[in-house]
Amino acid sequence: MNALLRLQSELGAIVTVDPLDLAANRTDKSGWVAGGTPLAIVRATTVDHVQATLRIATEFRVPVVTRGAGTGLSGGACGTDGSIVLSVAGLSRIIEINPDDELAVVEAGVINQHLNDALVDHNLWFAPDPASKAISTIGGNIATNAGGLLCAKYGVTREAVLGLSVVLADGSLLRTGHRTVKGVTGYDLTALLTGSEGTLGVIVEATVRVRALTPGTVATIGAVFDTVTAAARASAAITAARIRPAVMELIDPIALGHVATYLGPEGSAGLPLRGGAFLLVQTDGPAALAEAEAALIVLRAAGGEATLSTDAASGDRLLAIRRAMHPALEQLGQVLIEDVSVPRSRMAEMFAAIAEISARTGIPIPTVAHAGDGNLHPNFVIARRRGEAADAPVPDNIWAAADEMFRAALALGGTLTGEHGVGVLKRRWLRDEIGDTSLDLQRQLKAVFDPLGILNPGIMFAA
Amino acid sequence: MNALLRLQSELGAIVTVDPLDLAANRTDKSGWVAGGTPLAIVRATTVDHVQATLRIATEFRVPVVTRGAGTGLSGGACGTDGSIVLSVAGLSRIIEINPDDELAVVEAGVINQHLNDALVDHNLWFAPDPASKAISTIGGNIATNAGGLLCAKYGVTREAVLGLSVVLADGSLLRTGHRTVKGVTGYDLTALLTGSEGTLGVIVEATVRVRALTPGTVATIGAVFDTVTAAARASAAITAARIRPAVMELIDPIALGHVATYLGPEGSAGLPLRGGAFLLVQTDGPAALAEAEAALIVLRAAGGEATLSTDAASGDRLLAIRRAMHPALEQLGQVLIEDVSVPRSRMAEMFAAIAEISARTGIPIPTVAHAGDGNLHPNFVIARRRGEAADAPVPDNIWAAADEMFRAALALGGTLTGEHGVGVLKRRWLRDEIGDTSLDLQRQLKAVFDPLGILNPGIMFAA
Repeated sequence: MNALLRLQSELGAIVTVDPLDLAANRTDKSGWVAGGTPLAIVRATTVDHVQATLRIATEFRVPVVTRGAGTGLSGGACGTDGSIVLSVAGLSRIIEINPDDELAVVEAGVINQHLNDALVDHNLWFAPDPASKAISTIGGNIATNAGGLLCAKYGVTREAVLGLSVVLADGSLLRTGHRTVKGVTGYDLTALLTGSEGTLGVIVEATVRVRALTPGTVATIGAVFDTVTAAARASAAITAARIRPAVMELIDPIALGHVATYLGPEGSAGLPLRGGAFLLVQTDGPAALAEAEAALIVLRAAGGEATLSTDAASGDRLLAIRRAMHPALEQLGQVLIEDVSVPRSRMAEMFAAIAEISARTGIPIPTVAHAGDGNLHPNFVIARRRGEAADAPVPDNIWAAADEMFRAALALGGTLTGEHGVGVLKRRWLRDEIGDTSLDLQRQLKAVFDPLGILNPGIMFAA
Repeated sequence: MNALLRLQSELGAIVTVDPLDLAANRTDKSGWVAGGTPLAIVRATTVDHVQATLRIATEFRVPVVTRGAGTGLSGGACGTDGSIVLSVAGLSRIIEINPDDELAVVEAGVINQHLNDALVDHNLWFAPDPASKAISTIGGNIATNAGGLLCAKYGVTREAVLGLSVVLADGSLLRTGHRTVKGVTGYDLTALLTGSEGTLGVIVEATVRVRALTPGTVATIGAVFDTVTAAARASAAITAARIRPAVMELIDPIALGHVATYLGPEGSAGLPLRGGAFLLVQTDGPAALAEAEAALIVLRAAGGEATLSTDAASGDRLLAIRRAMHPALEQLGQVLIEDVSVPRSRMAEMFAAIAEISARTGIPIPTVAHAGDGNLHPNFVIARRRGEAADAPVPDNIWAAADEMFRAALALGGTLTGEHGVGVLKRRWLRDEIGDTSLDLQRQLKAVFDPLGILNPGIMFAA
């Protein structure tokens, strides 16, 4: 009996080999498409399904690509040739909400926003907020250690994960972590698995920390600067002034032009028509207004034309400008969203480096940044010629420009990826960032969890 | 040439074999004393010293026990027979304070409080605050993932560590992590090494996150309850009311009696003379007073006799009561400080379990808790008979009572150790908490970092 027959005989109707389905599971939101054809898709709805799949994969030495909602941006969950795509999207139960202990227990396929919808009645929320939160799974958020807009103030996903249930390569079940605020018994496998991109095990359940909704109102500032470097310096000055906004987002002039076109005259009222950069600052909590007023002083001193609003509608309008960024770019072609992060004080230099690369190569690089984190998303828009497949590979000249950008970020003390993960798209730069000693150790750690190399092979490390 | 001669010839005067010195390095603040005699103490003052020591240890297969200030409470840094005690206390430089990026780079031997002293002029602080912060090293704080009084609000040590420099068993240097708020390139070795108790490598340098000093005043509540379970329920009710104090400390009646005796009539004015439990609640930040007033209502509804003070002197007086706990017990004998942690909603049950064990065994167990975290420190006081060595082993009946206590904590969904670490004192219960699958994986991870088993052997895992 081969692997496919065994999957079908043990797991029945949750196994599919429909060609359209297989094809759809070869890609994610990065636009990357894996070559070849997966063996099958297993749509698990129970932990037993996941364990059975891994046992069979181990027996037949078949690669397993774990997949949640498929919203990844690094090609980390794309069904490769001959692999089993193990979907955990159907593991979608919220098992427990425990307001007294400020924790929740969820299956891996629970959508981030669904948990937040269930928490709000308890005056609680789950802080990790990737831009995809309306559609991405908590398992995927954990597998990539997802970031988002609120990290400088509210932390990254790792800080919200207390414990995990993980199916290991041989199908056995590992439980990590605890339900307590503190716990230091043994190594922190919870943190090691967070951000491991499906290469160490399959996360099936998580115990996550939830927190009290922030009391008080929200204050929002929209500020326009002549140049993106001025805006970047202003945002760094806010951090340096010991102000900690909940949100601080920066849009460069090229991106802002596209957003203005996309939103039309009404939606973009007040935005500079060309040449300006936009900085959005939002403060929350009991001192929101006082913090915003302090931020206003800093922004104006840094040359910004800044206005403060405390009514929700104005705040939403400003956030809508930020949210329009990706839809605006997607109208122009396939978008490769990059994800470098630099120390906040170096952000202006990173923007200057991007501008220099863009000018020299002639490739526009519209960029948005989570400025409070120093996390930039430079975008490459690939306009497809008529008749060209939408999923054609990213052209070499764009990878060459991205390569220069990664090197610039590393030279500034930064990192290749702030929140999207290494996946397949950045593995060729992994050694440049972490070095030989770390790479060698990490490969050995992978081998402990996955001695046969069946868990998402080719992801993070070159095969 | 043997290992000692090689150490002496390569490292000279930083190697000592003075018998008194060797003896002093066999113990830590837990009172545990390792058997036998260490081979030598190496007092490293540079990373090169650490690398040379590890190279020699590898060549001669000699165990290395890394040690900072020796303030550990689990016997995790005690020089064992024939081992090299590698002191990193002399790696005491603050290398960088970077206010713009809200980070600092320190050598492992920097005292926690010294960093805070250096940060205050920048309006910054380092949040990890173990009770030993005035005397413990940041390297030791990281090696144990130390907790403290402020964790529910400000996080544990892991959340403050951005990157590490670590000397591996063979003497090579590993760098982990980043200087950015976000960074997900590769596995999170920084988190894996945090809390690894010297068993995976020797931390020589850390890049740590520092944060803006909390603005505003501090409000302090002292509340007296008839019983410790009432006080525990009240503290859980504060969490459940979505109030997040900076500090919430609970002292049980037995401990409180000892504190009152120790402080004398003046210092203990207002404390119940017998039978009451004391809960200290401190709020900070811009809404400190409003939060304290909300807490006051909860505490009174829960049966507490509570008073609020906003002047610093009264707050300090209340904190002094908490701080007097250990000095008060140390006057009575050798103190074994335990460290279980339970979900906050189960704290009252844990206190009840401790009372039951105490009543049945006849062993007093004065207990204090970081109540906001559900982290209890039950204490066993071992009164030494005249002529008995102060470092005699903990009597079997006390370990039997501790064993029951650990099992009670695990049964309540808790953990063996919230913040002190496994060390040598709790390794026999490690499997009970983490299970066979995790234990097996953790031993394999250890073997990746330390194939010869020379890094703190016998710590965390039984040899």
